[in-house]
Amino acid sequence: MNPKLQTPQPLNFSTYKLLNNIMQVEIITIGNELLIGQVVDTNSAWMGKKLNNAGFDIVRITSIQDTEQAILNTLKEAQERVDIVLLTGGLGPTKDDITKATLAKYFNSQLVFNELVFEDVKRFLKGRVKNINKLNEGQAYVPECCEVISNHVGTAPIMWFEQEGKVVVSMPGVPPEMKLAMEREVVPRLEKRFVTQKIIHKTIQIANIPEAVLAEMLEPWEHQIPEYISLAYLPSPGKIRLRLTAKTNNEIGALSEIEKLIKQLYEIVGDNIFSEEDKPAQVLLSDLLRENGKTLAVAESCTGGNIGHLITSIPGSSAIFKGGVIAYENSIKEQVLKVDKKDLLSHGAVSKPVVEQMAKGVRELMQSDYAIATSGIAGPDGGTEEKPVGTVWIAVAGNFGVRSECFNFGRFRDRNIQRSSDMGLIMLLKELKK
Amino acid sequence: MNPKLQTPQPLNFSTYKLLNNIMQVEIITIGNELLIGQVVDTNSAWMGKKLNNAGFDIVRITSIQDTEQAILNTLKEAQERVDIVLLTGGLGPTKDDITKATLAKYFNSQLVFNELVFEDVKRFLKGRVKNINKLNEGQAYVPECCEVISNHVGTAPIMWFEQEGKVVVSMPGVPPEMKLAMEREVVPRLEKRFVTQKIIHKTIQIANIPEAVLAEMLEPWEHQIPEYISLAYLPSPGKIRLRLTAKTNNEIGALSEIEKLIKQLYEIVGDNIFSEEDKPAQVLLSDLLRENGKTLAVAESCTGGNIGHLITSIPGSSAIFKGGVIAYENSIKEQVLKVDKKDLLSHGAVSKPVVEQMAKGVRELMQSDYAIATSGIAGPDGGTEEKPVGTVWIAVAGNFGVRSECFNFGRFRDRNIQRSSDMGLIMLLKELKK
Repeated sequence: MNPKLQTPQPLNFSTYKLLNNIMQVEIITIGNELLIGQVVDTNSAWMGKKLNNAGFDIVRITSIQDTEQAILNTLKEAQERVDIVLLTGGLGPTKDDITKATLAKYFNSQLVFNELVFEDVKRFLKGRVKNINKLNEGQAYVPECCEVISNHVGTAPIMWFEQEGKVVVSMPGVPPEMKLAMEREVVPRLEKRFVTQKIIHKTIQIANIPEAVLAEMLEPWEHQIPEYISLAYLPSPGKIRLRLTAKTNNEIGALSEIEKLIKQLYEIVGDNIFSEEDKPAQVLLSDLLRENGKTLAVAESCTGGNIGHLITSIPGSSAIFKGGVIAYENSIKEQVLKVDKKDLLSHGAVSKPVVEQMAKGVRELMQSDYAIATSGIAGPDGGTEEKPVGTVWIAVAGNFGVRSECFNFGRFRDRNIQRSSDMGLIMLLKELKK
Repeated sequence: MNPKLQTPQPLNFSTYKLLNNIMQVEIITIGNELLIGQVVDTNSAWMGKKLNNAGFDIVRITSIQDTEQAILNTLKEAQERVDIVLLTGGLGPTKDDITKATLAKYFNSQLVFNELVFEDVKRFLKGRVKNINKLNEGQAYVPECCEVISNHVGTAPIMWFEQEGKVVVSMPGVPPEMKLAMEREVVPRLEKRFVTQKIIHKTIQIANIPEAVLAEMLEPWEHQIPEYISLAYLPSPGKIRLRLTAKTNNEIGALSEIEKLIKQLYEIVGDNIFSEEDKPAQVLLSDLLRENGKTLAVAESCTGGNIGHLITSIPGSSAIFKGGVIAYENSIKEQVLKVDKKDLLSHGAVSKPVVEQMAKGVRELMQSDYAIATSGIAGPDGGTEEKPVGTVWIAVAGNFGVRSECFNFGRFRDRNIQRSSDMGLIMLLKELKK
């Protein structure tokens, strides 16, 4: 083993999720807005993650129009395949919301007034509207055959149907309402009702190796992965997550097998592995700063505030984040961050001296322990032959001094912003782990 | 008519999309990562929007596991329902990518080496990797029966299958690769091949009225909408988009009917309507600033950089955006934005005097025409009885002076950040439209 390569840390078994059984689940999301792209379905991914962590296998996610026929057909097909079907959407007070009446029809039931739902509606609307109107009142009608689960943060009912051992749960499409219901009631009930076997996940995050190159590097390693462990490549711009999944009854054996595989992985890809946890870089960095009582500031040009946004999306970020300067125009780099005008003129804004001075400048301005700075050409315009679109300089500063690196993230603006943000976070993360 | 209510602008007919025919389409997205929530499927919404604007009706989006059986079954079911099926995903170079081989099986075809694809692969990898490896070379094998569409930004092939008048198109799941293929080739080909009738969309954006309240206000109005025009409520935190959709052969009649309906809508909800275009607030604001040659700066506390991020996600934003200060810690508000320390101490950071000084401070610091500032308690911690989680002060500043308003956006951090950002943009937008 090459002594320069990093030795893996002893595995933290709490990062494994040990679970019982693999029950199959389908998710159906209802609403024309999902189909014509006015709303991105983020609910399904969130639900999929929760369910998968609880030991369920999500085998299909279907988005359909809010017509009676579409709901009836899709639900019937799903129930023929699996025992658990979760629905979201179509539970609002307006007349294009037809899920409730359609479920009543599907289960040969009728809509009846439900006191519990009406209490939720009244409690939720108290202080928000002057009077409970008849549309609000209408939300208290639910199919007679369902069990109602309280909605603490909205007016739509959450309905649990059970027939011949199969479960259907209907939830609002509004994300916070669905999430609270899933966390407090739906997932715990499903676990209690169905879970009996074992599943193990482990995800390794690797930066800066293209997928095909990594795949070739890992081919011999892949061949020795035992049958009961499956490997998936999850590429996203600039990084790849490798997910090992074991479905087994011998969890001790599987865990030690996975540990062995990861040890070998370090020998092959070394410190391109930046995490053994399946968390975004901003969460990994924030956790590390919090553990060490350190603070961060950012100086963002091409990322335009996105690094600040990623960090401050995490609850409690005020403990580690001082703030930042979005230095979009060059005058801001010069006047607020004290970048030398001569360097701006001679090297251009997208250059090593400028990005390094941005990082040092914001660290000083905000009196933070660490700083991240970005300066690049996000595109589609602004590229030159020497510095094409996608050229990005990133610097990190701290008690270790300043380190900077130049990347080319290609021609797409969104991806450039995303990769630059991510790479800034990863660069500091690696520096702190040294 | 109440003279205080805003009169609608003459309708801009270019905002309508006139199209021919309504062909039904299904989208199938392939990949375990979508089902277990490691990746959010943003492709489908993007594709749905593009296709819908081109006059296609998306009737179903299905996300499935990358197993041969799942792909074969789902594709067969979809082809029984509709004439056009678009697939994304499972085209990478690694062994968990099985779409290509499965499609060959589905169409009783075999994988053959394709010169065109290999040229794409070589061109794309030139300068990126030292050698074309055998995994890269493997990407040049495609089912013999398909027509290959060039991928200009990646190594995965784009495949067009046509059998008995039905079309199946397989695209990479990597968003920029899929998007370029859709825009340049797939949508134009589908239009040429299938489009023959008419569809019209019009979306009106309304802020600050809860859905049930709006629905009650609009009930009489809804009753006079003719049968051939459908209405949908598309609520998102803090705003509702109302979408009118006409499916007709008499587009002149439909357009004038929609124009009449919108005129009536202004009489009912007045200046809560902030746009007749289906664009995000940041795009509407940026367009307006660009038209008038004006610039913006932001001072963000609770939004943590998100307003800057939203603005700078738009290509060409450097023409209108000077930059901003993410003033997360109070010391930054005081030292960088020159907020009066006495006001910070006596009123707290989440207060009218502080947010107004933040707006004025950043406008002065960055010499911008306009400024937006936010200061609030995003949660989950930090709330008090007087200022509970969700309390947000927002100010906008410009040649009109400073305007500020206090909101309560509820208890969810993500939603608070999102609504505060959106409302800051909408407040300035409304001020500029006065």
